[in-house]
Amino acid sequence: MLDLCLLGTGGMTPMPKRWLTSLMLRCEGSDILVDCGEGTQIAMKEVGWSPKSIDIMCFTHMHGDHISGLPGMLLNMANADRTDPVIMIGPKGLYNVTKSLCCIAPGLPFELRFIELDQATEEYKLGPYVISCYKVSHSVPCYGYSFTVPRKGRFDAEKAKELGIPLAYWSRLQKGEVITDMDLKKTFRPEMVMGPDRKGLKVTYATDSRPTDSIVRAAADADVFICEGMYGEPGSEGKAREYRHMTMQEAAAMAAKAEPNPKELIFTHYSPSMIWPKDYIEDVRSIFPASFCGKDGLMKTLDYTEEE
Amino acid sequence: MLDLCLLGTGGMTPMPKRWLTSLMLRCEGSDILVDCGEGTQIAMKEVGWSPKSIDIMCFTHMHGDHISGLPGMLLNMANADRTDPVIMIGPKGLYNVTKSLCCIAPGLPFELRFIELDQATEEYKLGPYVISCYKVSHSVPCYGYSFTVPRKGRFDAEKAKELGIPLAYWSRLQKGEVITDMDLKKTFRPEMVMGPDRKGLKVTYATDSRPTDSIVRAAADADVFICEGMYGEPGSEGKAREYRHMTMQEAAAMAAKAEPNPKELIFTHYSPSMIWPKDYIEDVRSIFPASFCGKDGLMKTLDYTEEE
Repeated sequence: MLDLCLLGTGGMTPMPKRWLTSLMLRCEGSDILVDCGEGTQIAMKEVGWSPKSIDIMCFTHMHGDHISGLPGMLLNMANADRTDPVIMIGPKGLYNVTKSLCCIAPGLPFELRFIELDQATEEYKLGPYVISCYKVSHSVPCYGYSFTVPRKGRFDAEKAKELGIPLAYWSRLQKGEVITDMDLKKTFRPEMVMGPDRKGLKVTYATDSRPTDSIVRAAADADVFICEGMYGEPGSEGKAREYRHMTMQEAAAMAAKAEPNPKELIFTHYSPSMIWPKDYIEDVRSIFPASFCGKDGLMKTLDYTEEE
Repeated sequence: MLDLCLLGTGGMTPMPKRWLTSLMLRCEGSDILVDCGEGTQIAMKEVGWSPKSIDIMCFTHMHGDHISGLPGMLLNMANADRTDPVIMIGPKGLYNVTKSLCCIAPGLPFELRFIELDQATEEYKLGPYVISCYKVSHSVPCYGYSFTVPRKGRFDAEKAKELGIPLAYWSRLQKGEVITDMDLKKTFRPEMVMGPDRKGLKVTYATDSRPTDSIVRAAADADVFICEGMYGEPGSEGKAREYRHMTMQEAAAMAAKAEPNPKELIFTHYSPSMIWPKDYIEDVRSIFPASFCGKDGLMKTLDYTEEE
């Protein structure tokens, strides 16, 4: 199971009733925060999620509206008695920016470990997650992320019985252990009883960017594709191009192009000038039907489907 | 006339429905912001005040909850097309902290000019204000401020007529000009027609601190004395001492001791643990009757009283 929450959906500047764009993921007690603008810690308090279990922070880029809340968040985590290290992932320069901002958060009781991205794509296995980082196209170096929770193949109990594998070994084999039994003089391997890996859960995230092939590739087969929809009104493509952002329609076109399509597209990072993104959702659905307007505090729980 | 607004009244950490402690003053189109924690720019948008006219920012000290919103606020002022310089006042080190935090606010279209405080008291005349800075007692260097809008003496029209001062000079004399008339072969000085300076408007501000004589002196004769009331519940003095803060009762005792008393005491900087400061106001009023609980968005307009 994977919980996600859109803590905020605003771009550029925080507004009354619209927090800055941020996503939080929870899985097996290990949480990920994606971007942390001014006020994100308050948005987190509003939805009642705790900052203590944030093991990983991912930053799309280092513009103020995506990272200005970092020192407050770290102080908040310290107040919540966190002592475990936090892994910080973001474009090259993240360490220096963090160090600068943290002049007002001295003496944190936990370590920050940095992964600075500079390749077109990079992948990290961290806790229950596989995090795929991919370069997008903004006015400064910027990355999108796919978060996957992999799922092992089906355990074949009939085959385990056939092979005479003692019951005590079954769960260890399911966890991937190779077991040699000295009495039986046999070695049991997971692949003897485990089917091929099944489809896991996948959330793809992209903001702030022009449309790119890298986003289309990342969005393929996602359970949820969360994407910037900075503008929606007719004629806003020029503005989107000028500021290196994208329209809801451009995001929908990427979802439609991704093969297989993501199950759904959820918009975030709205321009302060766009008060009611829903005004444009019908137009957007003519491009990609499973499009939805995200809003602050939107939560979803993703689970494996029964039949798989 | 002097407008004031408590943009926020929370201490330590921003909370849903309670912004971090911040005060804004407006007088003759020149505004002062005192402290700027995470979210202060949103609080300002909520009350509908503009950041464009902030000519002066005063910082009590450099703890995160008092300065973490600075880069966002400066970006906000840039978005509002400010180009005039901003005077930054605060304890020694303010320049370095600002420089560090502003790594995410590059290329501001206005200059920041710094006044770093290190004396027990310092006074600056800036625009319509006289700003008196006084050291208080916290865990790090910390200053309180009195903001005074001075008021000139009364203009004596009868005397001006008696002295044969041409009508055209009256307003210039009221503004403090010395005028020599070559035809009349006379020099007219303001003191010929102006009475002694009258009482101006005074707002005194103090947070975060233990009670000090400097605060008592500063609060004397204030129209409004805004002071930290971190705790209110019986038995909280020990906690206040330990964390170098003060209780509502200690603040009230200072107001009562100030000679002449301030007209009113308004509390701010509540601990997140204190949900309803009003629970303690009756107790506090037994110490200083004109005590009031500040709350986010509280506005007051101070004006000269008629009879003065």
